[in-house]
Amino acid sequence: MNIDYLSLRWDGSRLFLLDQKLLPLEEVYFEAKSYQDCFLAIEEMIVRGAPLIGYTGAFGLTLYLRECLEKDIFSRDKLEEVANYLISSRPTAVNLKYEVDLLKRLIFEKLDEDVSLSDVYEFSLDHIKMQMSDLGEQNLKMAKQVKDYLSKRYGDRPLRFLTLCNTGSLACGPIGTALGAITKMNEDKLVEFVWACETRPYLQGSRLTSYELLKENIEHEIIVEGAAAYLMQEKKVDAVIVGADRIVRNGDTANKIGTQTLSILANYFDIPFIVVAPTSSFDLSLDSGTQIEVEFRDPNEIHSIKGVRISPLKSKAWNPSFDIASGKLISAISCEKGLISPVNENNVTETLGDKK
Amino acid sequence: MNIDYLSLRWDGSRLFLLDQKLLPLEEVYFEAKSYQDCFLAIEEMIVRGAPLIGYTGAFGLTLYLRECLEKDIFSRDKLEEVANYLISSRPTAVNLKYEVDLLKRLIFEKLDEDVSLSDVYEFSLDHIKMQMSDLGEQNLKMAKQVKDYLSKRYGDRPLRFLTLCNTGSLACGPIGTALGAITKMNEDKLVEFVWACETRPYLQGSRLTSYELLKENIEHEIIVEGAAAYLMQEKKVDAVIVGADRIVRNGDTANKIGTQTLSILANYFDIPFIVVAPTSSFDLSLDSGTQIEVEFRDPNEIHSIKGVRISPLKSKAWNPSFDIASGKLISAISCEKGLISPVNENNVTETLGDKK
Repeated sequence: MNIDYLSLRWDGSRLFLLDQKLLPLEEVYFEAKSYQDCFLAIEEMIVRGAPLIGYTGAFGLTLYLRECLEKDIFSRDKLEEVANYLISSRPTAVNLKYEVDLLKRLIFEKLDEDVSLSDVYEFSLDHIKMQMSDLGEQNLKMAKQVKDYLSKRYGDRPLRFLTLCNTGSLACGPIGTALGAITKMNEDKLVEFVWACETRPYLQGSRLTSYELLKENIEHEIIVEGAAAYLMQEKKVDAVIVGADRIVRNGDTANKIGTQTLSILANYFDIPFIVVAPTSSFDLSLDSGTQIEVEFRDPNEIHSIKGVRISPLKSKAWNPSFDIASGKLISAISCEKGLISPVNENNVTETLGDKK
Repeated sequence: MNIDYLSLRWDGSRLFLLDQKLLPLEEVYFEAKSYQDCFLAIEEMIVRGAPLIGYTGAFGLTLYLRECLEKDIFSRDKLEEVANYLISSRPTAVNLKYEVDLLKRLIFEKLDEDVSLSDVYEFSLDHIKMQMSDLGEQNLKMAKQVKDYLSKRYGDRPLRFLTLCNTGSLACGPIGTALGAITKMNEDKLVEFVWACETRPYLQGSRLTSYELLKENIEHEIIVEGAAAYLMQEKKVDAVIVGADRIVRNGDTANKIGTQTLSILANYFDIPFIVVAPTSSFDLSLDSGTQIEVEFRDPNEIHSIKGVRISPLKSKAWNPSFDIASGKLISAISCEKGLISPVNENNVTETLGDKK
């Protein structure tokens, strides 16, 4: 059984993870030979993106099963310990805990059914492949919905997209969300051009989105965030498309800093503003975006780039990790349960099947 | 006769120019001992900002006069040649040509009146000092008008400003335009806080504005341009204040890339958006901003920071040097002939004394 995504490859016996810290100037695969290597890959940010981190954790557990087979050892306590160890590589990653805990539970179930360790190992691999392929199917559905939505406005002509941050296969394994929708539409020859915001301070757009777009042979250019208004003014953008960190009941959407700015500009220039995100990104316990607490990141991300200091040593910087686009300014949200448009509490909860 | 600004100092016999290429991490003054040194200082960007480049050129001419005195040589042809040489250090700089040509003409006039070369040299120094001090007076008037305008909305409470790029004494010699208004208001204890946009791609905000604000002991933090909407949403900004490259008849204003974005955001959040610029920045030959041709700069400003490559080597980038804020979104323009508000063709041309 093989798995072959850009960011994660399994050749039947070996796991290769694209070292995203070295991108885009070096393209090096890290071979994870043990669960300890998987821990390291997550902790050292060789892999990034919530889904990919989850799958890497699940692979860690699977590689431990293989080690048990090879050494003819196994204990449930030790598997439990390995699972917790893997989860501790990134304690705030919800997906990591979800994927590792899920696979651990399934492994125990199989063992309870007296399935052999060798078969449980094979089952684990199949399970991960299925999880990734299910996500790919979901991404595909979200992409299709975006395509249909935009065709109502633009017909079948190839479109020019503006996107922020990195939301493609590097973060997800399969396809991805916003960038995934772009790459899928490109397969149907429906993409003319992509504008990638460089995405200060961490530069995911310059480093990763541009890298993925080159891989996909999609025509694109990088812009600084400040140039977004002029770009729209010049009628060079047909749609803005972004991912989401968290979407609440009224459709207010927390996402990478710069998202709210783009939503206001798109609204001003009457350009569709589309969010692509799985239902796991929805938090229906909150009514409105004002209830979302915004985290702040290390000001040094602004003061220095790749270790080179820019600002005076005494300077301070304000570095919110994300902002919140008002649901009122979002034209559509595409999740695997359907396309939400217009965006309001009724349509969000109806699509998610969680009406109060 | 002495001149003592942060960016340019004359101690009676020696000219010192703050090397702005080394800011903010090193604070080194370059001593310009000859007109050739002044040429170099402009060409190598040791000095920057239209007014400061002009004064450095005029100093070049004056240092040549001193050389003539010391060596007991002088020819009109050679002075003409030196003037043209100085102007050629930055062929597109309108101010440089203006200041050098003006001083050259005045020197010839004095010589025609049989004034001694020694007295012409002293006259040149006085002339430059007066030019700089006149600009300072103009800056002061613009600052005062901004203060009065804002006091109508906010009374006498200290305000929080958001600014872009660098528009202070580093660029001007004396006070400056937008940042000058802030530093002057700060002397009246009317500034609570300044948010400095880092101003990608060339990072004038991080490198220079932050440096000037530290010098002035004004509380401030740097933000990435993408964070502007969230900053306004959080009600942390009382006014946005920027300079201008060019202002046309209807008040449309070309300025550093990112200005238009800020103007749309300020309008959305109902925050005053103020332009501070001398009348020399107005171009009343154009009716509207759509007639302004936007220059594009080297994409490498986006791909690399201080020589460190960020994006893939094959990536392309779109790097407009400025954008155009609609006059309709500008609350007020402060120039030395008065404050223009509301901004429209009638008020612009009336203030500038150029009604059709």
